Amino acid sequence: MLQGEGERLNELKSQINAAYGREPLDLLIQDVRLVNVHSGRVVSTNIGIKAGRVVSISSSFPSKRPALVFEGKNLYAIPGLIDAHCHIESTLLTPAALSEVIVPQGTTTLLIDPMEIANVAGLAGLLAFMDGMESLPYRVFIEVSSRVPTAPGLETTGGILGVEETEHLLDLPAAVSLGELDPSKIDTLSDEHLLKVIAVQRRGKVANGHAIGLTGSSLAAYATAGLSDDHECVTFDELQERVALGIEVMVREGSSERNLEALIGGVLEYGTDTRNLMFCTDDKHTSDIRHEGHIDYNVNRAIELGLDPIRAIQMATLNTAQHFHIEHLIGSITPGRYADFILSESMNKIKPEHVFVGGRLAASAGKLVADIPEIAYPDELRRTVKLHHKLTDKDFTIAADDVTAHVRVIELIPGQIVNRAGEAALTVENGAIRPDVEQDVLPICCVERYGKNGRIGRGFICGFGLKQGAIAGSVAHDHHNILVVGVDPREMRMAAEALVASQGGFVVVASRKVQALLPLPLCGLMSEEKTEIVDQKLAAVRDAARSIGCPLETPFMALSFVSLPTVPELGITDYGLVDVKQHKITSLFLG
Amino acid sequence: MLQGEGERLNELKSQINAAYGREPLDLLIQDVRLVNVHSGRVVSTNIGIKAGRVVSISSSFPSKRPALVFEGKNLYAIPGLIDAHCHIESTLLTPAALSEVIVPQGTTTLLIDPMEIANVAGLAGLLAFMDGMESLPYRVFIEVSSRVPTAPGLETTGGILGVEETEHLLDLPAAVSLGELDPSKIDTLSDEHLLKVIAVQRRGKVANGHAIGLTGSSLAAYATAGLSDDHECVTFDELQERVALGIEVMVREGSSERNLEALIGGVLEYGTDTRNLMFCTDDKHTSDIRHEGHIDYNVNRAIELGLDPIRAIQMATLNTAQHFHIEHLIGSITPGRYADFILSESMNKIKPEHVFVGGRLAASAGKLVADIPEIAYPDELRRTVKLHHKLTDKDFTIAADDVTAHVRVIELIPGQIVNRAGEAALTVENGAIRPDVEQDVLPICCVERYGKNGRIGRGFICGFGLKQGAIAGSVAHDHHNILVVGVDPREMRMAAEALVASQGGFVVVASRKVQALLPLPLCGLMSEEKTEIVDQKLAAVRDAARSIGCPLETPFMALSFVSLPTVPELGITDYGLVDVKQHKITSLFLG
Repeated sequence: MLQGEGERLNELKSQINAAYGREPLDLLIQDVRLVNVHSGRVVSTNIGIKAGRVVSISSSFPSKRPALVFEGKNLYAIPGLIDAHCHIESTLLTPAALSEVIVPQGTTTLLIDPMEIANVAGLAGLLAFMDGMESLPYRVFIEVSSRVPTAPGLETTGGILGVEETEHLLDLPAAVSLGELDPSKIDTLSDEHLLKVIAVQRRGKVANGHAIGLTGSSLAAYATAGLSDDHECVTFDELQERVALGIEVMVREGSSERNLEALIGGVLEYGTDTRNLMFCTDDKHTSDIRHEGHIDYNVNRAIELGLDPIRAIQMATLNTAQHFHIEHLIGSITPGRYADFILSESMNKIKPEHVFVGGRLAASAGKLVADIPEIAYPDELRRTVKLHHKLTDKDFTIAADDVTAHVRVIELIPGQIVNRAGEAALTVENGAIRPDVEQDVLPICCVERYGKNGRIGRGFICGFGLKQGAIAGSVAHDHHNILVVGVDPREMRMAAEALVASQGGFVVVASRKVQALLPLPLCGLMSEEKTEIVDQKLAAVRDAARSIGCPLETPFMALSFVSLPTVPELGITDYGLVDVKQHKITSLFLG
Repeated sequence: MLQGEGERLNELKSQINAAYGREPLDLLIQDVRLVNVHSGRVVSTNIGIKAGRVVSISSSFPSKRPALVFEGKNLYAIPGLIDAHCHIESTLLTPAALSEVIVPQGTTTLLIDPMEIANVAGLAGLLAFMDGMESLPYRVFIEVSSRVPTAPGLETTGGILGVEETEHLLDLPAAVSLGELDPSKIDTLSDEHLLKVIAVQRRGKVANGHAIGLTGSSLAAYATAGLSDDHECVTFDELQERVALGIEVMVREGSSERNLEALIGGVLEYGTDTRNLMFCTDDKHTSDIRHEGHIDYNVNRAIELGLDPIRAIQMATLNTAQHFHIEHLIGSITPGRYADFILSESMNKIKPEHVFVGGRLAASAGKLVADIPEIAYPDELRRTVKLHHKLTDKDFTIAADDVTAHVRVIELIPGQIVNRAGEAALTVENGAIRPDVEQDVLPICCVERYGKNGRIGRGFICGFGLKQGAIAGSVAHDHHNILVVGVDPREMRMAAEALVASQGGFVVVASRKVQALLPLPLCGLMSEEKTEIVDQKLAAVRDAARSIGCPLETPFMALSFVSLPTVPELGITDYGLVDVKQHKITSLFLG
């Protein structure tokens, strides 16, 4: 994707020559019904490709015989689909392993906000993570994370992206935007974050929004600050208000956030111009992607609801490319753009028969046929879990003087990332608070895992339902320290230590031993295995958690959101319990 | 328009505060019908402005009393109009003097390709020209000229913009694109020009096309090279072919090039999506602008033909801003964008009652009310006409040995910039060829005027009809050396010398004296006077030319195109007569 100037010059000359017919094409896709997202028409034609890019769309056969001819068999040729906003870390897969999941579905470009990696590994780590991405059988562009850390002064993170680091990243050709900016940073006029917006605009790139729940003057202020899109739009009223302020809307279908029906329903009812709209997934699990689809799902669902197929396809292709100022590279099947496209029997329900990326066949009949590159990540990404000092059982014991301790409790709300601030009275024995299995009030500890200061934040949580043992995870938004919930301090320590040994992951400890472990050694966030293995091991840790009493469908995801210092009402970091509304550390004791 | 980071940060904070209602607005435009080009709706609302930008569009009155309230009187508020491509030099006015002409018509932004200035004054001169532009009562963005010189090796120019100079210019915030690239540079795979395209794309900026007459594989090759728009589109078939290749079309209404009716007619007949279309003037004289309008004319004419007013307005605002990646700055009346807009009684026929630029009233009832800034240009722009050595009458005498000379003749075609290569037999007396007033075959000389080498190119021309005297001009595309046509060598020398004395302009000499002179001291291209004075003096030189026999309506414009070494069939530069098709200097003698 990126290359030297001289190399690009030679390639460009050869592409121009091929367009003129002076040099043979590398590949001619013969006889397709091309969905032209610029003209809005479907045209019977051939696609000529040279050095990875489209150089001709013409119904006549070129004078020089192409190196290769691929029979298009009158299939629809649809531009490769673009996910306008997603977090690749939440798939638990490496970008390479993810190829198998998304490319056969027709997604050829991801715009990723690598917020989690950046919080773990900082600028150097992020650069290392991006290394080798050009060898993937799909394209990746970067939305440079704006909140690293999310809550300065309330959490320890591995990396920090200040203005300088952000500018460094924004200068990279693969960087297309500043990633979703937290509205509170606008409200509080944060110098750092406003300077990041100024920096991205000066580079002719885009500032992505995250306008969750904003309306009226707060939304106007957000637009005034330069935020130009929103993927957190839930109702059609919100969509209309955003579009009218010049904020483009990404219609999201993730694993849990499902906004398409409400938004497209309104678009159809009110005849809204779709040029301001795009599609994204934000967070979608691989199992959901494999089961129902990726961006193709958004497109097909919108068409099913009644949206004109070309409009729906534009939302997944041209509109996104134009919004991110990369319409000269992707988003349509036209000369000069990368030869990224789908061949599909139908354009009303996209089901990729073949997927081409950069003029190469990448997937056929639902299977990846491109080679998955072996990307060797350096130790700074694979050895990120470090303890400041050796853990003891005492680290997981919460001390108190009285016979009864009145404590704050994080109460999970099933299926939601917000929680409630509850209360409980717990027995104290020998100066230590006892977990209350009956009431389901268990200690939760957040262990600083960057080897920086050895902090451990402590609190109580209700909702995990463990009767014995402990579970732990190193995916803990957005600081990604180690979170442990358990009944027994020793098993809590063992769970934390198991994750240090595996360099991150999800673990269940019971009966004094590790019952199941999904290692996530890449930043403590991602596996290096293929999707089937990851799915199996994920199922195993979930089963193990269930076997010690956890009633949750996805216990490790629930755990990963408890840590957020920005989502109401309570969060937990290595600094301690966070009162989100007050934006400060609060005591775990009441009164 | 451009400012330091700290200044911008403070301004942004104050704008955000005003959007929240924490600080008073600078200006509230109360009670308008806002034409929202994003949503495609017209909404009754108020416009809140702070520090030059829109910060709110809301029907409620702000809680803090605004510093100023302007009664919108239920007028339509329409985003300020953008000219997507023009050459400011062809107005003969300075940017400051042009304010009076275009701003009252509702044009608030020009995207200019300063090709002529660059050919005269190079990088340093162009930078000097741009200096002070932020004080104008309209906005200027730069399409960085790609052909300086147009025909290397066939002409002497004052300036050269190689790859390095071009990159320097492209890095400027005011630069939005690489200016219209000559298709022959793609055809011949010119390293220099392809590297310029690569350079502009790497900066996330746009490569402007000039796809005159291209079709089929040449057009595909042009698109392959990265050229992304075209303002030379004449027929609707051309428009369709361009749009289908991902090339956006600028619908042009200049003084002589009139493409709107044909293009918009087709758009209406075939229901073409207008999102790919913009408006431009390219070259429009001030008298035409004052008489029929500027971009408002394009919009009104399109509506008159039947185009939906909002679509027409989008073509002059949002579409252009998006194409040039400056939609966060201009193109709509929404928070974060500059407060550039028109108030008009009607949206079906825009007639600006008031024009606001950067939140200030710039024009009312057809008159500029903003101050015209005094921009003092440095000597490098005001002393550009230099001779290498003193001229003699002999310099304007064309020598021959025979008694009859058989010569090539540039034959003007009335109203066109192309010409025909003709022939003539001329009498030779005392070793000098005599002009033939009967046949209207007169000598034409092109005097190098940068003091670099003193070359004089010589040829014969038919069409100026002079019976006596001489006319001369320093506007001579694109090299802008001094062109002289005349009957008498001494008067030809006097005409050239008059232009050296005036530092450029248009002049008529007869009866051994200057009969009329329009000085154009700014680069030899532009006057420093106001539009009325320039118009008067232009009329005077035209009258004087007519009085010595010239039948042409606009003799100096005809003269200025004869020099082009790229427009068939013959051109003339200081190197001599140019065979355009062969792209080389040819002898003025036949056989």
